[in-house]
Amino acid sequence: MAMATFTVGAHSKNPTKTVVRARNFEMIIDEPRNLGGTDTGPTPVEYVLGALAGCLNVVGHVVAKEMAFELKGITFELAGELDPAKFLGESTTNRAGFQEIRVKVIPDSNASKEQLDAWLKTVESRCPVSDNLANTTPVQLTL
Amino acid sequence: MAMATFTVGAHSKNPTKTVVRARNFEMIIDEPRNLGGTDTGPTPVEYVLGALAGCLNVVGHVVAKEMAFELKGITFELAGELDPAKFLGESTTNRAGFQEIRVKVIPDSNASKEQLDAWLKTVESRCPVSDNLANTTPVQLTL
Repeated sequence: MAMATFTVGAHSKNPTKTVVRARNFEMIIDEPRNLGGTDTGPTPVEYVLGALAGCLNVVGHVVAKEMAFELKGITFELAGELDPAKFLGESTTNRAGFQEIRVKVIPDSNASKEQLDAWLKTVESRCPVSDNLANTTPVQLTL
Repeated sequence: MAMATFTVGAHSKNPTKTVVRARNFEMIIDEPRNLGGTDTGPTPVEYVLGALAGCLNVVGHVVAKEMAFELKGITFELAGELDPAKFLGESTTNRAGFQEIRVKVIPDSNASKEQLDAWLKTVESRCPVSDNLANTTPVQLTL
């Protein structure tokens, strides 16, 4: 199968607000007022958590179909902590991003605990977003 | 400084569409029709690229201010390739996610090439999203 290429364009509206264009869709990214922003959209790291949920949903349904159990839907609760010191340029030994990301996955299904455990393990290994977060991904920034 | 916690909630609307709630904001995530989706929003991996742009914008402005050069705005072009085979459960040795992410950063500034090179290097090291992508981030999935 051919590789799939994804591209987006983005530009700043102000120092905290970014407008992203992905095909015919737009995302508004901003920071809340207590972080100096104009609070017109989710923060970048909230988008990361959202992207992970969206990916787990798609792959979750693909894998449930393969495993032949009924999946009526999935609810997700995601959380992560980061130390803003690094981002703000203060002295810290902490990393810039989330130290870990926790995802509570609540499938609406009558499948057994054993089936769901196997399902979740497969979903994690095949989800592009969890792969890019859990493993190293080269990020090439150029001017 | 205290750690900052970010949380979002999400639920599936159908096998490809996810509605994410982040504070008072909503994200709609979906797949295009040629990937079996209902095409009501960007894909999860497009959200990852968008989140990276939004993060680089915020940190870019913080660092430009510290370096005391004028930054009128930033434009970004982002791209990545992934092999859908893994996600679809086909046989492949490729990883599930983006093999690399390329970001063209176009600052609207009169700063020198040397200043901008130093700026970009600092921005990359302090951006939470580029940190979470470029380095390993534990993702804990639980039922």
